[in-house]
Amino acid sequence: MTEFEQWLASPPKKIDQQAQSAAQQRQLQLTKPAGSLGQLENVAISLAGMQATAQPNIEKIHITVFASDHGIVAEGISAFLQSVTAEMVRNFSRGGAAISVLAKETNAYLDVLNMGTVSQLETLTGVEDHRIAAGTQNFLRQPAMTIEQCQQALSIARQHIEKLKNNNIDLFIGGEMGIGNTTSATAIASALLAINPREITGSGTGLNQAEIDHKADVIQQALNKHHNEITSPFSILQHFGGFEVAALAGAYLTCAKVGIPVLVDGFISSVAALMAEKLCPDTKNWFLYSHQSSELGHQVILKHLAAQPLLNIGMRLGEASGAAATIPLIKLSCALHNSMATFAEAAVSEKA
Amino acid sequence: MTEFEQWLASPPKKIDQQAQSAAQQRQLQLTKPAGSLGQLENVAISLAGMQATAQPNIEKIHITVFASDHGIVAEGISAFLQSVTAEMVRNFSRGGAAISVLAKETNAYLDVLNMGTVSQLETLTGVEDHRIAAGTQNFLRQPAMTIEQCQQALSIARQHIEKLKNNNIDLFIGGEMGIGNTTSATAIASALLAINPREITGSGTGLNQAEIDHKADVIQQALNKHHNEITSPFSILQHFGGFEVAALAGAYLTCAKVGIPVLVDGFISSVAALMAEKLCPDTKNWFLYSHQSSELGHQVILKHLAAQPLLNIGMRLGEASGAAATIPLIKLSCALHNSMATFAEAAVSEKA
Repeated sequence: MTEFEQWLASPPKKIDQQAQSAAQQRQLQLTKPAGSLGQLENVAISLAGMQATAQPNIEKIHITVFASDHGIVAEGISAFLQSVTAEMVRNFSRGGAAISVLAKETNAYLDVLNMGTVSQLETLTGVEDHRIAAGTQNFLRQPAMTIEQCQQALSIARQHIEKLKNNNIDLFIGGEMGIGNTTSATAIASALLAINPREITGSGTGLNQAEIDHKADVIQQALNKHHNEITSPFSILQHFGGFEVAALAGAYLTCAKVGIPVLVDGFISSVAALMAEKLCPDTKNWFLYSHQSSELGHQVILKHLAAQPLLNIGMRLGEASGAAATIPLIKLSCALHNSMATFAEAAVSEKA
Repeated sequence: MTEFEQWLASPPKKIDQQAQSAAQQRQLQLTKPAGSLGQLENVAISLAGMQATAQPNIEKIHITVFASDHGIVAEGISAFLQSVTAEMVRNFSRGGAAISVLAKETNAYLDVLNMGTVSQLETLTGVEDHRIAAGTQNFLRQPAMTIEQCQQALSIARQHIEKLKNNNIDLFIGGEMGIGNTTSATAIASALLAINPREITGSGTGLNQAEIDHKADVIQQALNKHHNEITSPFSILQHFGGFEVAALAGAYLTCAKVGIPVLVDGFISSVAALMAEKLCPDTKNWFLYSHQSSELGHQVILKHLAAQPLLNIGMRLGEASGAAATIPLIKLSCALHNSMATFAEAAVSEKA
């Protein structure tokens, strides 16, 4: 086994069942009908297991947006030009994007990792240059990445998260920017789950029905072309993955191995989460789910992860925006859990 | 017409359609695919119409919990003892309840209006005494309130909101505490919408199925008993309403008349919102909806209000807790709307 393979196979950190049970008990003692805070109770209980304490807390939140370009855009599968990836990286850096605003409002630290835009970018505040190549290859013609490139994408994310672990962050949110990446993610999900791409191919940044049909056709052709090679989760990632999708999977894997709770964003992030779980079982024990996007395939992916997202408000922007919008609910969940009075403390009568 | 009748009939403040259109236009220029922020876009656009500005903002938020007792508890329709109403009012005052924690975390001002607990309470910080009576009457035997009492409940809320208007609040949230009040609200909704109470009678604070059936039976019997008298929305409110349910309706009516946006909470608040709309059409133009609770009938009420709540996370606590949990999303909606860069500002290419 190579060092990479050993790392990939190493199990996620164990969830503390005792702390989780203690948190569950505490919820039953708080001054409210049992269960009446719904999923806000579940979030606190899950975090208790991850943080190994009956009273979990989320303060330091780190958001990383992984950006990259996709060779598959040559097939006309996106409503936006490829140049928008780089333009949006600049927008992140200057604070004008949705995720910039959301990070600022929620006191989360935001950085951007350029995993492979087509052109080299000038130095930008808050953007680290980790370009593996000038975008991936067109996966209708050849694998999107070489094996080495795919390992490199995972490893860059691994190092990034190990650094964040040393900074004692309480929650990690990953996001993505890459014109063409719903096509990449849909191909990955179709292969991982052995489903017809038509069932989960959506409009991405805004395709009409004819364009969606074309996108699904391109994915189906690519699945056919690489059929004999895509025999493992890693090979699926290597054949269809964007560098940013692989980096997201690598970030999630590392969070689970070092014990950092993850708040998963939308469609593409959820496909990366599913990939991480397939690459290393029980990685998903470290996931909380932020929202169900309006991208067609998201519900299917969430179902396979047994996910219960908190929001379902028609978001479909990516960039970690859905997860960032959910940060306040995660914090409120902890505040309620830790600060509400118990029936005994408040001298309130329990259920008759 | 009496002064009260004149007030009730006076129309809600008009929504500024021009500001709303300008906000809609602005959303299309922000650096994201059109529509990709989902309901967060709609919230900002709605608020623009209410605040008569293309760039709305929510800073000063006021939460009022109306508390009261219900004579109908004599029929065994609640899982908790009647004494819990007063105990929870003390819990609100001491900061131990869910709404206390949520108000603190979201920087919202919280006060409690005691509209009619069975016993007089000692002086409590943050609690105003407006007791109309020692709880309502058992509406299985007689009307819950006299006509005068019902007008009084609406008028107390009216004065309260008119005072808040002078304090220039940006958003009003109403909540309720009153053992037995899902029974009151369900009776009101059944009468207003002419539906079988079985279709919308839920478990409240935690009834089992046999107890829910009994609760629905009690409501059906009460509907039969008062059938000839409940000929108008006001008479329905007077016959079945809790003082706190009437106060919520009065608060919502006043918010619409003086122009304060309302964030509606769960089942009981939504029934009060429906009542307000029936008492004075277009009151609902001033409503935003926070969450769909897990209380059985809520979805039906929301549908009649054409409501699109932001959260659906199984909350069913009341106290304004669902609305308070939604405050951050309302604020983020405004921040995104006001602070994101436009395509032109960020030099990002628009859809190809």
